[in-house]
Amino acid sequence: MNTPIPTRLAALRQAMRQHGVSACIIPSADPHLSEYLPEHWQGRAWVSGFTGSAGTVIVTAKHAGLWTDSRYFAQAERQLEGTGFTLMKLRVPHTPEHLQWLASELHRGDVVAVAGDSLPISSRRQMETLLAEHGARLRTDLDLPGEIWTERPALPRSPITEHALDYACTPRSDKLARVRKRMHKLGATHHLLSSLDDIAWITNLRGSDVPCNPVFLAHLLISADAGTTLFTGRDKLNDELIARLASDGITVADYATVTDVLTGLPAESALLLDPSRVVCTIADAIPASVRRVEAANPSTALKAVKGPAELDHIREVMRRDGAALARAFREIGQQLDEGKPLTELDVHRLVHAARAAQPGFVGESFDTIAGYQANGAMPHYRATPESHSPLKAEGLLLIDSGGQYLGGTTDITRMLALGPVTAEQRRDATLVLKGMIALSRARFPKGASGPQLDALARAPLWAAGCDYGHGTGHGVGYFLNVHEGPQSIRPPVSGGALVALEPGMISSIEPGLYKPDRHGIRHENLAVVVEADQTEFGDFLAFETLTLCPFDRQVLDIALLSHDERAWLDDYHATVRAAIAPLLDGADLAWLTRHCAPLGN
Amino acid sequence: MNTPIPTRLAALRQAMRQHGVSACIIPSADPHLSEYLPEHWQGRAWVSGFTGSAGTVIVTAKHAGLWTDSRYFAQAERQLEGTGFTLMKLRVPHTPEHLQWLASELHRGDVVAVAGDSLPISSRRQMETLLAEHGARLRTDLDLPGEIWTERPALPRSPITEHALDYACTPRSDKLARVRKRMHKLGATHHLLSSLDDIAWITNLRGSDVPCNPVFLAHLLISADAGTTLFTGRDKLNDELIARLASDGITVADYATVTDVLTGLPAESALLLDPSRVVCTIADAIPASVRRVEAANPSTALKAVKGPAELDHIREVMRRDGAALARAFREIGQQLDEGKPLTELDVHRLVHAARAAQPGFVGESFDTIAGYQANGAMPHYRATPESHSPLKAEGLLLIDSGGQYLGGTTDITRMLALGPVTAEQRRDATLVLKGMIALSRARFPKGASGPQLDALARAPLWAAGCDYGHGTGHGVGYFLNVHEGPQSIRPPVSGGALVALEPGMISSIEPGLYKPDRHGIRHENLAVVVEADQTEFGDFLAFETLTLCPFDRQVLDIALLSHDERAWLDDYHATVRAAIAPLLDGADLAWLTRHCAPLGN
Repeated sequence: MNTPIPTRLAALRQAMRQHGVSACIIPSADPHLSEYLPEHWQGRAWVSGFTGSAGTVIVTAKHAGLWTDSRYFAQAERQLEGTGFTLMKLRVPHTPEHLQWLASELHRGDVVAVAGDSLPISSRRQMETLLAEHGARLRTDLDLPGEIWTERPALPRSPITEHALDYACTPRSDKLARVRKRMHKLGATHHLLSSLDDIAWITNLRGSDVPCNPVFLAHLLISADAGTTLFTGRDKLNDELIARLASDGITVADYATVTDVLTGLPAESALLLDPSRVVCTIADAIPASVRRVEAANPSTALKAVKGPAELDHIREVMRRDGAALARAFREIGQQLDEGKPLTELDVHRLVHAARAAQPGFVGESFDTIAGYQANGAMPHYRATPESHSPLKAEGLLLIDSGGQYLGGTTDITRMLALGPVTAEQRRDATLVLKGMIALSRARFPKGASGPQLDALARAPLWAAGCDYGHGTGHGVGYFLNVHEGPQSIRPPVSGGALVALEPGMISSIEPGLYKPDRHGIRHENLAVVVEADQTEFGDFLAFETLTLCPFDRQVLDIALLSHDERAWLDDYHATVRAAIAPLLDGADLAWLTRHCAPLGN
Repeated sequence: MNTPIPTRLAALRQAMRQHGVSACIIPSADPHLSEYLPEHWQGRAWVSGFTGSAGTVIVTAKHAGLWTDSRYFAQAERQLEGTGFTLMKLRVPHTPEHLQWLASELHRGDVVAVAGDSLPISSRRQMETLLAEHGARLRTDLDLPGEIWTERPALPRSPITEHALDYACTPRSDKLARVRKRMHKLGATHHLLSSLDDIAWITNLRGSDVPCNPVFLAHLLISADAGTTLFTGRDKLNDELIARLASDGITVADYATVTDVLTGLPAESALLLDPSRVVCTIADAIPASVRRVEAANPSTALKAVKGPAELDHIREVMRRDGAALARAFREIGQQLDEGKPLTELDVHRLVHAARAAQPGFVGESFDTIAGYQANGAMPHYRATPESHSPLKAEGLLLIDSGGQYLGGTTDITRMLALGPVTAEQRRDATLVLKGMIALSRARFPKGASGPQLDALARAPLWAAGCDYGHGTGHGVGYFLNVHEGPQSIRPPVSGGALVALEPGMISSIEPGLYKPDRHGIRHENLAVVVEADQTEFGDFLAFETLTLCPFDRQVLDIALLSHDERAWLDDYHATVRAAIAPLLDGADLAWLTRHCAPLGN
């Protein structure tokens, strides 16, 4: 039997009083600063009852607030009712508005507590500066939610498997050598990593400790001259794998021993770490005698650039993924035509089943978003057994889904017309497609960053007085996290760092348009940056679209497309048909052929 | 008789030895950090012999280098020959590559000197940090070039006149009130300005101490509660003007007394200044007891936004400027047709004469760039009596010119076909025009910055493997400097600050394409940001093109323009014709009519 939320809140305040703490912050974070958290670190959800993926709790003696962004307002209002927590609406997602609120509440001498295993050291510095301005002090050595968490789930213990070299393409010894080369350049004798995708990439290992991301809980310590230590559950690996790792100089140690090993680092060592990717509890174990070299993890930039062998696998995965979606989309249409009752949840099921039938499929790369009509206007909508829409033979269905395959990670959004759609819906869907085509066709000079190109996807929408509130594109891992950096395509931010797009980087291209309570549009392909041209003006790059799935022309107003845009769409459909047709037959092949036919005039 | 450059260099090294200075930096800067320098502060040119507008000298015991960018390489090589100075080629213009070089030469204990009247305090901080890393020290209290400068020109003493309220539109008392409002918000009791265009704008005064910019040497000290002091040459103003200023609370003081007045500021005062717009010698006069409030000058943002009355004047000025250019361009074509020998210098003369005949014309807003064929490929080419090209009845002439009028400042670039042009030239000119049209037609959300939009002008060029190495647009003053901030349209820079485009801001839109030794293309209009639309997605802005002058269709390949682009060009030409035709007659009117005719099909 679970304790009620008000009891949990009272226990937290009791613990705060005991420790002389005026305010306790509980972020949505774990010691690896992952996007998806194991239940063991979902303390914010346990304390507040709010289960959305993004949110921050701040509790003071008088106030208990949960800060989240607009996609979660409805859910949070429902879940927080009667808990003692107040919903605090973030105006701009991912901004520290809660800290501005906190600053306004602080008094000289106040102590603010955040569990050190949920806070990167870069954030601690910023918070300390802010608190100092108000005469307050930060403590990261208290884990107050942990102290009172009576039903805390254990750490996940899923097995770790090898990402076979046939798929991983580069031996872990080569990857370690490349990381060590960069360590040498930075003058580092050691390098500590806590970010799970970096660790999985370097070691060519995969796990399932986190939903949708094929990673495992671990820290990694790389020595420049000696070996590498992988801190994880020893019993997660079999003896054969442990031996193979040992032959590459990697020793497996217990997860919790990382702090002991850090404490024992020799005095003359120089430890490379990324202050935004390592939490306080880990960093605080580093002796003062060890010099810290702060820089981005070298593996983050290395893994972002996919090599030719990886791209070959990805292209094959895209064929499989496209064939699966052709089958699923054909089935959705057919079942509706046959008058069968379908809901958004059936879309989840059909898409998953079609992907699961493909060779090399491991799981979903994120929870499918199937949003019918107005539900599509919520960019992060998730149908649940408790709350979902039935589908009718009219209007728009937005399907954003992706798969994890041994040979790559997919992420695609398509709009399906389930029957008649309005002229406004077709106009909106066509405007968004214009933006997608403009960016997909763009050539750009080497050195250009995503923020430099973002407006190309938005300009056709801006021309019609429309815009969308999310980024245009994110990096995508290789059988790894569906969101990865360092590159991204989004509007430039004042003072923000820019990362150049490099050949081999994969990005989504996903403009959208959302009209609350009416409909939402998003088209999404994955594309890889390729070399396009060398001219007297330098090297030029371009995108090669990787995703292979037709656009439903019933959602479009073809008359609004220019000659060049129609040519792009015809070319794309011809490519899709040639690539996928060999994998389909019968009704599926007929569906594909119909959807890939030239637009005509 | 002038002393030879090697003698000047020897004198500088002698002075360096006397003061124990290891390296002396001489930037191109004055106490007002102006773009154009009075001769009194052209010490870098005097010491080195290099007269280009951009360059930095560093002299050590063993090395004397001049850093400048590619547009000046040929000139610098010629002028530095035999001087003892080495040309140091900047790879990226306006970057501190010379400081990187200096850092690599430094030894512990070295003293580096820069005259404090040529260095903003923000740069001093950066340089001090850099030097400290190498155990070296910066001195800004030594003016070594000043010590040895035997033939130093006096300060300019041009008269100061009032910018009549009919044209200035806003009384100086209102402007001062708006600045004081911002001072109040920032908690400042005083505000010091050294930037000449800010001072001219606030006071509604104009001068001619600097070529092409109608400004005068001055500092300004605004008190929140008491009066305002204008530090300039008292004999530059007549008694009537001094009395009128006094009635607005402005006292005129001698230019050199600003440091004394700063030294006497009361201990409890808080002085607002922009650390990037005030030099060290001025800032060092501020007592330690005065609190410094560092922020951008409020007037910079205020004057960037032109009001409706100013825009009315600007629109009229654009008609006058367009009529002048129609006459000048017609004359150039006619004289060539008649077989008269013309050179690039004749283009300067004809353009100037046509503008000078217009009411309200004061002078040029910058030196005309008339570049024939390959000369057009140098973005900052300047024909001189010693070096210029004759014009032939073939090929491309680039004319970039502008005027200062009482009712505004113009800046326009047009390409003229003097006879047959090659297919490559027409293709290139059309690509650049596509970029100009794309940005000119763009709508964009309120809050968007120039760097966010820059790619819209480049994308058509990128598509053809082309690009240009300069920004796409700069702010333009109102009967003030032809280059002004804070906004600009250029590629985003990592870590750079972004300034939103606001209704009333004027920007140039000037993409280009330069093929060294062959030809160069640039089209340039001025445009004002206007409100375009309010939708459920927010407020949208657009550009209204202000410049009124036809594009020579003989330089274009009309077949490469899309339907929308042709429509834009026809609309523009119809607007130009309607606006300017009433000011022209005879051959000029016939020229305009012919150039503004619809493109046809």
